[in-house]
Amino acid sequence: MSTADVVLARCGELDAISASPTWLERTHLTPEHRQANALAGRWMKAAGLHVWQDAAGNICGRREGSSPGMPALLLGSHLDTVPDAGSFDGMLGVLMAIAVAERLQHVTLPFALEVIGFSDEEGARFGKALLGSQAVAGTWDEAWWDLRDRDDVTLHQAFLEFGLDPRRVGDAARRPDELVGYLEAHIEQGPYLEAADASLGHVTTIAGARRFRLSVTGEARHAGGTPYERRRDALLGAAEMIVAVERLARAAGTIATVGRIEVQPGAVNVIAGRADLSLDLRAATDPERDRSWDEIEQELRAICVRRDLRLDLVETHRAPAAPCAAWLSEAVVAGIRTTGDDHPMGLWSRAGHDAMAIAAITGIGMLFLRCHDGISHHPDESVREVDVARGLDAFEQAVLEVARRYDEARP
Amino acid sequence: MSTADVVLARCGELDAISASPTWLERTHLTPEHRQANALAGRWMKAAGLHVWQDAAGNICGRREGSSPGMPALLLGSHLDTVPDAGSFDGMLGVLMAIAVAERLQHVTLPFALEVIGFSDEEGARFGKALLGSQAVAGTWDEAWWDLRDRDDVTLHQAFLEFGLDPRRVGDAARRPDELVGYLEAHIEQGPYLEAADASLGHVTTIAGARRFRLSVTGEARHAGGTPYERRRDALLGAAEMIVAVERLARAAGTIATVGRIEVQPGAVNVIAGRADLSLDLRAATDPERDRSWDEIEQELRAICVRRDLRLDLVETHRAPAAPCAAWLSEAVVAGIRTTGDDHPMGLWSRAGHDAMAIAAITGIGMLFLRCHDGISHHPDESVREVDVARGLDAFEQAVLEVARRYDEARP
Repeated sequence: MSTADVVLARCGELDAISASPTWLERTHLTPEHRQANALAGRWMKAAGLHVWQDAAGNICGRREGSSPGMPALLLGSHLDTVPDAGSFDGMLGVLMAIAVAERLQHVTLPFALEVIGFSDEEGARFGKALLGSQAVAGTWDEAWWDLRDRDDVTLHQAFLEFGLDPRRVGDAARRPDELVGYLEAHIEQGPYLEAADASLGHVTTIAGARRFRLSVTGEARHAGGTPYERRRDALLGAAEMIVAVERLARAAGTIATVGRIEVQPGAVNVIAGRADLSLDLRAATDPERDRSWDEIEQELRAICVRRDLRLDLVETHRAPAAPCAAWLSEAVVAGIRTTGDDHPMGLWSRAGHDAMAIAAITGIGMLFLRCHDGISHHPDESVREVDVARGLDAFEQAVLEVARRYDEARP
Repeated sequence: MSTADVVLARCGELDAISASPTWLERTHLTPEHRQANALAGRWMKAAGLHVWQDAAGNICGRREGSSPGMPALLLGSHLDTVPDAGSFDGMLGVLMAIAVAERLQHVTLPFALEVIGFSDEEGARFGKALLGSQAVAGTWDEAWWDLRDRDDVTLHQAFLEFGLDPRRVGDAARRPDELVGYLEAHIEQGPYLEAADASLGHVTTIAGARRFRLSVTGEARHAGGTPYERRRDALLGAAEMIVAVERLARAAGTIATVGRIEVQPGAVNVIAGRADLSLDLRAATDPERDRSWDEIEQELRAICVRRDLRLDLVETHRAPAAPCAAWLSEAVVAGIRTTGDDHPMGLWSRAGHDAMAIAAITGIGMLFLRCHDGISHHPDESVREVDVARGLDAFEQAVLEVARRYDEARP
C-alpha cells in the first residue's frame, strides 16, 4: 500500500468515530474526540513519535532533532468536524503530517519535529472556533469558559467531563522560542485549484473571519388571530435580514453566511417571538471585511426598527487575516515544484484554519490540495489519491527545504 | 368563591401540568396530557357527570337528560397547548363547560349534556391539528398514524405508549343522531371585542385554514470556500420565501404565518443544505384562501427555480370554513343578551377551533370572550374575571335557550 493509500484508509477509519449513526459529526470534548485522539495517538507512536495529550485536549507527537530539546517545526491540522461532515477537512492534514513524520523518521533534522491534531477548529459545539489552536498559541480567553453548547453544558463543565483541568489550560501554550514554524496541509475547500487543473497550491494569506450571534426578539402570538399590523414576527425580521446579508455582501465582494437559525416557540400556529441566528463574514483583507460588516449591521438595525423588533448582537469570533511567512511559503512552493508543477498556484484561503491561531506565535505556511467541485463541510467532500500522493511528496520536501533554510540561517 | 373565580383558579391548576419548568407546554399523548385528563375528569365527576376517556384520548363527561339515552348537547374545547402557551386558550372553554354543567346539574333538560376536553387541537406535537375532535367527528385518516414528532415517534407509537389501541380509534366517533349540537366557549385570540369594548361575542363562521410543510433542499458546503455563484443555500431560499409569503398574503387580504423553521446541518460555518418550514394560511372564505395559496405556491416555486433549490410541499392540514348553525348562534346571542349586552357583536374566527371538526357531524355555536390586546399563544394571554363571569352566565343561558328551542321543535 502506498503512503497515500494508508492516509486515505486512515481517513476512513476516523469516519467511523461519529456521534451520529447516519452522518459524520465529531465535536470538541465528546467521547468521539477522545476516541479520535486515541487512534491518532497510536498512529503517531507507530511513526516513531513520543505522544501526549496536551492540557487543551490536542493530541501531540514529537521526535527530537539532532540533539534533544531543540525548537520544533510543528505540522498539524484538526480532528474535529462540523455536523454531517466530509472525511478530509482537517483529518487529512493530521494524517499527512503523521505520514511525513514516519517517512522522515530516520533523517536527522536540525530541529525537533512535532505533529499536532487540534481538538477544535470548527467551533461546531461551542460556537467559537479554533479553541485547540488558540490554547497552543496562548491566546486563551477566560470568558470562553462560560460558552454553552446546545444542551447548555459550559465549556468549563465539558473540560472537566473530558478529564481536563480548566485551571491548567495555560500548560498547552507554546513559547515562540520553542518553535521553528508551523506547516499545515489542507484540502482547498474551494474550486480554484480544480479550475486551474492543479493538484496542489500554496496559501498566500488566510482571510480573517468575524462571526456574530444575532438574536431577534418580537412577540409570540396566535397565528390566526393577530392582524398583520399588530405582528412583531421575529422570523419574518430574521428572514429579511438573511436576504439583506446576501445582497450587501455580494455587492461588497465579501462572503457572508447565515448557517444556523433557531426560532421560539417554533410552532406551526404561533408567530415566532424570537429568532437566533449566526453570521459568518470573510473577506480578502480585514478593512474590506470590516467595512462590509458596518454596512450589514446598519441594514439589520434598520430592518428591526421597521418591524419593531429588538436586535441583540454578540461578536463570537474575530480573527485577523493571517499572511503566510515568506520563507515557509517558499519552502512549500519548493516542495510542490518537486512534484513536477513548475509554477505552483498561490491563493488566499477563504476558510479559516488552525494556522491562523498559530500565526500569533510563529511563522506559518500552508499547502492546499485540490478537492472536487469545491465541496466541503458535506459528505461529498472528496480528494483524489494522486493529489494526496503528490501532496505527501510536496509536504515531505517542504519539511526538508525548511531544514536546509533553517540550517543556512543558523549562526 | 364565585364560579368565575373557581374557573380561573382551575386554569391556574392546569398551568402546573407542563413539560417545561419555565413555560407551559402540554401536547398530545404525553404524561402531561394524562395528568390534565385526570384532573379535568375529577372536576367533571364533582359536577355530577359520568366520566370516561375515549378511544382518542379525549376526556368526556355526561349526564342524562329527562330520560336515559337521549341525544346529547356537547360542550367543549381542548386541554392541549402550544409551547410557551397562555393559560386560557382551550382550557377556559373546558372549565366553563364543566362549571355550566355543575350549575345546571339539578335542572332537567330535554337532552343529555356532555362535556368534552379534546386531546389535541393545536397540533403542536405531530404538526396536524384537531386530532381529538376529528376522532370524535369520525373523520380520522389512517395516513395520520405515520405522522412523526420531533423525536421521530409516530402517532401510532404514541397512542400505544399512552395506553390507547390505535385499532379502536373509531370507537371515539359519534353519530349525528346521538347529538343535538355543539357549543364552545373560547377566548377571542384577536383584538376586536376589546376594541369594541365588549365582554362577549358570537362567532358567525370559523375561517378555514390550510397548513403546509415546505422542505427546501440545496447543498451544504463550506461557508468560506464556496463562491456565491456556486451556492445552493437552502436557508437563503427559505428566507426569501418567508418574505414573499408575507407580501403576497397581505396583498390578498389573507393571513399567512411561517412559525417554524429548522435547518440542516445548522452550523455557523456551513451553508444550509436543507430547511424545513411550516406555513399556515387563513382567510374569511375558502375561495379567497385557495386563491391566495395558488399565488404563494407559484412564487415559492419561482424562488426555488432561481436558486437551483428543490422544493417539496406537503399539505398537512386543510379545514373548510365552518359556519355556525343559525339556531345555535341565536341561542348564544340570547345568552349574551341576558348579561346586559343588547347588541352582541358577531365576528368571524381567524383561529381554528375544535368546533370546525365537530361541524362535520352536528351544528356548532361559539361564544367568544374578550382577551387583552389580542394576545394568545403567549404567556401574557389574559382574560378579565368580569368577562369570565358574564361568559358563564351567557353560556348557561345559551344551553337553556337551546333546550327551549329543542323542546319547541320536537314533534
